[in-house]
Amino acid sequence: MSRIAFVGAGRIGQTIIYSTLMSGVASEATIFDIVPNLPQRFKDELMHALAASGINTKINATNSVEDIKDADVVLISAGKPRKADQSRTDVFKDNAKIMMDFAKTLPKNNQNALFIMVTNPVDQMASVFMKYSGKFTISSGAQVENTRLRSFIADRLGVPVNSVDGLTGGEHGEGLSIFWDTVKVNGRPFDEVSKGVLSREDVTKYVKGIAAQIIGVMGGTSWGPATSMRDIIVSFCKDQKRVMSISMPLKYKDEVIHMSRPTVVGNPIGPTIEKSLSEEDQGLLNASAEKMYNEYKELLKTLSA
Amino acid sequence: MSRIAFVGAGRIGQTIIYSTLMSGVASEATIFDIVPNLPQRFKDELMHALAASGINTKINATNSVEDIKDADVVLISAGKPRKADQSRTDVFKDNAKIMMDFAKTLPKNNQNALFIMVTNPVDQMASVFMKYSGKFTISSGAQVENTRLRSFIADRLGVPVNSVDGLTGGEHGEGLSIFWDTVKVNGRPFDEVSKGVLSREDVTKYVKGIAAQIIGVMGGTSWGPATSMRDIIVSFCKDQKRVMSISMPLKYKDEVIHMSRPTVVGNPIGPTIEKSLSEEDQGLLNASAEKMYNEYKELLKTLSA
Amino acid sequence: MSRIAFVGAGRIGQTIIYSTLMSGVASEATIFDIVPNLPQRFKDELMHALAASGINTKINATNSVEDIKDADVVLISAGKPRKADQSRTDVFKDNAKIMMDFAKTLPKNNQNALFIMVTNPVDQMASVFMKYSGKFTISSGAQVENTRLRSFIADRLGVPVNSVDGLTGGEHGEGLSIFWDTVKVNGRPFDEVSKGVLSREDVTKYVKGIAAQIIGVMGGTSWGPATSMRDIIVSFCKDQKRVMSISMPLKYKDEVIHMSRPTVVGNPIGPTIEKSLSEEDQGLLNASAEKMYNEYKELLKTLSA
Amino acid sequence: MSRIAFVGAGRIGQTIIYSTLMSGVASEATIFDIVPNLPQRFKDELMHALAASGINTKINATNSVEDIKDADVVLISAGKPRKADQSRTDVFKDNAKIMMDFAKTLPKNNQNALFIMVTNPVDQMASVFMKYSGKFTISSGAQVENTRLRSFIADRLGVPVNSVDGLTGGEHGEGLSIFWDTVKVNGRPFDEVSKGVLSREDVTKYVKGIAAQIIGVMGGTSWGPATSMRDIIVSFCKDQKRVMSISMPLKYKDEVIHMSRPTVVGNPIGPTIEKSLSEEDQGLLNASAEKMYNEYKELLKTLSA
Repeated sequence: MSRIAFVGAGRIGQTIIYSTLMSGVASEATIFDIVPNLPQRFKDELMHALAASGINTKINATNSVEDIKDADVVLISAGKPRKADQSRTDVFKDNAKIMMDFAKTLPKNNQNALFIMVTNPVDQMASVFMKYSGKFTISSGAQVENTRLRSFIADRLGVPVNSVDGLTGGEHGEGLSIFWDTVKVNGRPFDEVSKGVLSREDVTKYVKGIAAQIIGVMGGTSWGPATSMRDIIVSFCKDQKRVMSISMPLKYKDEVIHMSRPTVVGNPIGPTIEKSLSEEDQGLLNASAEKMYNEYKELLKTLSA
Repeated sequence: MSRIAFVGAGRIGQTIIYSTLMSGVASEATIFDIVPNLPQRFKDELMHALAASGINTKINATNSVEDIKDADVVLISAGKPRKADQSRTDVFKDNAKIMMDFAKTLPKNNQNALFIMVTNPVDQMASVFMKYSGKFTISSGAQVENTRLRSFIADRLGVPVNSVDGLTGGEHGEGLSIFWDTVKVNGRPFDEVSKGVLSREDVTKYVKGIAAQIIGVMGGTSWGPATSMRDIIVSFCKDQKRVMSISMPLKYKDEVIHMSRPTVVGNPIGPTIEKSLSEEDQGLLNASAEKMYNEYKELLKTLSA
Repeated sequence: MSRIAFVGAGRIGQTIIYSTLMSGVASEATIFDIVPNLPQRFKDELMHALAASGINTKINATNSVEDIKDADVVLISAGKPRKADQSRTDVFKDNAKIMMDFAKTLPKNNQNALFIMVTNPVDQMASVFMKYSGKFTISSGAQVENTRLRSFIADRLGVPVNSVDGLTGGEHGEGLSIFWDTVKVNGRPFDEVSKGVLSREDVTKYVKGIAAQIIGVMGGTSWGPATSMRDIIVSFCKDQKRVMSISMPLKYKDEVIHMSRPTVVGNPIGPTIEKSLSEEDQGLLNASAEKMYNEYKELLKTLSA
Repeated sequence: MSRIAFVGAGRIGQTIIYSTLMSGVASEATIFDIVPNLPQRFKDELMHALAASGINTKINATNSVEDIKDADVVLISAGKPRKADQSRTDVFKDNAKIMMDFAKTLPKNNQNALFIMVTNPVDQMASVFMKYSGKFTISSGAQVENTRLRSFIADRLGVPVNSVDGLTGGEHGEGLSIFWDTVKVNGRPFDEVSKGVLSREDVTKYVKGIAAQIIGVMGGTSWGPATSMRDIIVSFCKDQKRVMSISMPLKYKDEVIHMSRPTVVGNPIGPTIEKSLSEEDQGLLNASAEKMYNEYKELLKTLSA
């Protein structure tokens, strides 16, 4: 039973918190948000939900980040959402400053915590928080893309989702890598099973584009990513050692960047197992690392500007 | 494994659907909403969440109520939310008309379904739907109030929620009855355990007032009621026979009204067990029945007006 | 999270303990058996099983009954099995003496525990333990017969077991009552659904006879009864309020006897809900009570002889 | 939902079957044993247990191996137990002949099944079955040893088992390798945390010796190994991709042998991730492979003798 702290209780934050606490993995949860009364009333809702399930988690609600103490896991989803007229760089700057603040306050009371970043742009925020806090940090990475890949193929081929396997990694969004050599249906290669029904292009388009479509209709994604986040937390807390595509720190040249790679999620987190990928798939990761490093270096410059 | 249909995919509807499907109880789910693309994109989110959990539920998304067929359970949360300038009677009229429409279309393709009402005002909507469809209908009733009662006492006395027992029933809101003779902490009567720390008035104020407080801060309740709804569905589908305060049809004078009473929730639903309550607590229920009947008769008049 | 003590770790005891601990309901478990090293090595097996499941239950293994302390639940399965040449009265005498010993030692260190009897003859052992300890005691009762009733009908009619409902009660074995008015398939009366396929006699023969058949081939029943026991413990510990046919104390004339009746299994245990049965079914219970009282009084005489 | 077949319903077989079916992962289960009435009566017990849990698994019981058809997983635990006067070679010969028989009958009706070997000597039986059936076969491997390692350290250091990580592999029994570089307590190296309390020797002695101690008192191990087996089956059926120490086929010189290595257990099974181990730990595996190959080649000679 773990002590888990949640920094931020917005739309995605709430869904992650609900999903995680309902798994019964937390003996104690601390919920922080700057909005007055929000953590307190959300605590009420959670107490009602946990009572229904017979789960005895102690919940602390606070508007002060100083109340987060002795956590085993700290999950950060706080930050400013991207406004219509903002560039990606603007969002980076806004949220990077918030992370630099958290990097000052959170580590001293949570020396042994695993830090998990959810705030966007998620890989860069993980790197900024780790750079300024000195604490081991991961982000949710491409795990939700794995579920999108598997569920789309299952839906289109009319097979149970459990019989579809496959991993993604690298960057988020347009730059995402699908490791095609790992994509199997009942153990058989994707291309063999899908011939004439579903192409690699169909799958790629769905996996890269579905988030935007959901956001367009529903205002944001929440149920899908939150459930993947719950899996990451549970696999860590119970030492289940599930292989997931989370974003792990990678020393690259003079910086630590974060890039999604298949990783054994136990306690402790690791190792990454990209060496088990095909050479072609490993090549995709290497290309991503160089690209992500360069982008991150550019973004870092804006912080000192 | 059950086939469950959901009529309405708004805020509370989505949370109920997520919570229910994640329990693994549904072999097939049909999601209807009138908003174009909403059921379809919500289906995507759910597919991603279920893939993460290894749950193989087939999901159908539709904007046509005719596509709801052969369900074991039909849960209705569709309806118009109350506007600031609307009276309670106005909301009743708006939503009663929607229920009368559903009463024409849903029964013929779902002859053997259990119908569960979530749309407000919930007891009256259940009665209207049952009156016009001729189908056995329940509503979520006061089950969420049971969780509010138990979790508040547990929180204030510092004991695990599982060691607090207690039932509520009758009307919703101000008229709710707390069956005090059932309220126990580790098997001991509430008054004995809470003396000097917590009064019946404190508890009553919380149980009746917390929903409004949550709505004030969060815009609506969802996590708490949705989890209770999930419990009702699961207890029915798995024939768990849990005793819950659901709203059951009651032949009263010339009408069937719906009133929350402790009920064995199995397949089939029932019996209610109010005879096991103390005489005093049964008296509260009798008074509620008369009051609810009179109010409902007044509201029904507005439909023919 | 509850502290649960198990008195006896034989065949049925082990299966109950495994099943219960794997549900995750126990924060701490104490396992007692008189056989040297048995609780200790069984603890090892359980530690390996719990590690596989990520469940952090603290287990104490002991050969001294004095080590059982501060339990929330004490389950007693210790006792002598019936030998080939023993009469039912002989078994009663042997095990009643064991219960009278436990009645001296267990209560003082476990003032607030719920006591659950599994040792045979189970209803009489529950009464003897309660008489001499003064502690509230239940026994597993006819809950396993409910599962036999439901699963047999489901198997023969080719429907999912969740769609079959039905309760049993009264005495164990030949004297068991099946409450036919509660037996439903998808909510329809048994007689209507089963016509020409399955008779009440077929069902009765199976429910009353299957235990002996299992014992004949496998040497004893364990998986079925143990799972029902787990349900009783979990429903109590999580206050799930499931209605089950457990054996509850009943003041009858000058004695407290134990007889299986549909009961709300929450924390606290109760109430029984036999008033919700049909008049005919209630009549079966009344007849059982008189018979069980007389038999118990006869057996009690042997203790002072 | 998967179709799972179980070949053998003895002590360990029964415990695996119960544990697996109670996880809800099987839509259909077929249970074979040569003992007349045993599968049938065990089916009854399981039906009662599943009814208690609301799990709708269809169970087929048979004394004919021909009735095993279209399974997704076939688990083999049938075989002769080692008699007091038998050498290890004798046991190999007896059971290898049984596996060669199964290799003729099982594959043709179960073309797409994953075969899992439990019968001892387990690695060699897996190799024999795979050699003669041509079907991909794994064995439970050292996964139970992982749970023994983790739970023993947790128990002695007084920490939750989830905070202890560590992998084993190679041979079973005396030749088992503990991969010490993977053994961590709350993420810190074993040697650092255990100094002065627990030595590598203590741990090694327990992990290698506890099975014999359990067998000495209880007549056999069952609860621990069965739960690990359940995890392997569930991780495959739900494509959870947990890293476990299962025994995977390894082409070594002119034979396929089976040796325990950390492996991603999804659908499909694999890859093994021994490349993520330290060089020292990989060296242990290489030494084991050579030794296991030589022993297996010697044993194979006895089959043609």
